[in-house]
Amino acid sequence: MIDLYTAATPNGYKISIALEEMALPYNLIPLNLMAGEQKQPDFLKICPNGRIPAIVDRDNDDFAVFESGAILIYLAEKSGKFLPTEPKARSQVLQWLMFQMGGIGPMMGQANVFYRYFPETIQPAIDRYQHECRRLFEVLNDRLAHHEYLVDDYSIADMANWAWVRTHEWSGVPVEGLEHLQRWINALYQRPACKKGITLPPRQDASTVTKAGSSMITR
Amino acid sequence: MIDLYTAATPNGYKISIALEEMALPYNLIPLNLMAGEQKQPDFLKICPNGRIPAIVDRDNDDFAVFESGAILIYLAEKSGKFLPTEPKARSQVLQWLMFQMGGIGPMMGQANVFYRYFPETIQPAIDRYQHECRRLFEVLNDRLAHHEYLVDDYSIADMANWAWVRTHEWSGVPVEGLEHLQRWINALYQRPACKKGITLPPRQDASTVTKAGSSMITR
Repeated sequence: MIDLYTAATPNGYKISIALEEMALPYNLIPLNLMAGEQKQPDFLKICPNGRIPAIVDRDNDDFAVFESGAILIYLAEKSGKFLPTEPKARSQVLQWLMFQMGGIGPMMGQANVFYRYFPETIQPAIDRYQHECRRLFEVLNDRLAHHEYLVDDYSIADMANWAWVRTHEWSGVPVEGLEHLQRWINALYQRPACKKGITLPPRQDASTVTKAGSSMITR
Repeated sequence: MIDLYTAATPNGYKISIALEEMALPYNLIPLNLMAGEQKQPDFLKICPNGRIPAIVDRDNDDFAVFESGAILIYLAEKSGKFLPTEPKARSQVLQWLMFQMGGIGPMMGQANVFYRYFPETIQPAIDRYQHECRRLFEVLNDRLAHHEYLVDDYSIADMANWAWVRTHEWSGVPVEGLEHLQRWINALYQRPACKKGITLPPRQDASTVTKAGSSMITR
């Protein structure tokens, strides 16, 4: 059994999607980010960075894993699914996973901060991050023009990127003209595990989510 | 032989350090970022994101790898060095590598943008990123209080984090009071491969570097 410490955010949803796709049994343990549960000593023993998501694998000596990208690799290797063993395809999945970890995630996170949460309206910062997100979306769109998924078969790279890109409206980043990206976004909504994963845990009411987002999306 | 497309930046240095540590033969191919060489069609075939670093492995069917985190994993697996095969230690290295890819790198990058390059002085944005970097440094410091390196033996996780953290002054982020982090920063400077890696390619003169940095550190 996997204990999943999480919250209703894109990084959290990556892992609930993956666990659903892999059909691994897990306990969903939602943390109250507004109450600072992610900064409590017990959780810091699991995740020294004090951020969700994190997992503890009760079937592997209570091994703890933090950072969503590392959790995805761990779960893929545990289940033997969604990360190829053939070295080149495997590397390509890791490349597009890193593209999400170092690009899509941080840049959409910053767009959200300045567009949605920051106490002041700083238009140059909003513009900077929305433009960079649009550029990154165009990179994905070009890739998806010639690939059904980011790398051959559906993989953890798709899960990671999709969990963020699907929220483009919240970040104020248009996807107009990016037909291949739109096709891929819609295709993943048809997957039961994706559809279910983005409800675990359920979002709180909108005003609460906004406040929670303000404290949790600090990157 | 590995072709390394790179420039004098922390993400580029991660790979020159790794290649030196692993004693893998490579061709250093510096791109002129100010001239936009990283956006040229020939390079986009290697790296669709139009950013350095990227490699092409001439001994593996000209296989191309982009995203510095994915390149580090590829080279570690090719050389059999600096990434454990034991599953738990291996996952821990990937966790601290992801901490760099999703945290240290993007946040120091943003601190640099607003502290060094942005046309306007936007103090709230400078403060935001410098504070977040300091918080991340404290997470590393706590880890290094009980570990000589981030995970047992020196690994690609140390290379990735060090290539950025050593430049803390440029980002305007103090390391005062973080004695374990300072110990680790200094220890890695003693490694010949680290010392050499951060000179490949050499930095241009300071004014040029500033301008180049402005265009290249867009995350």
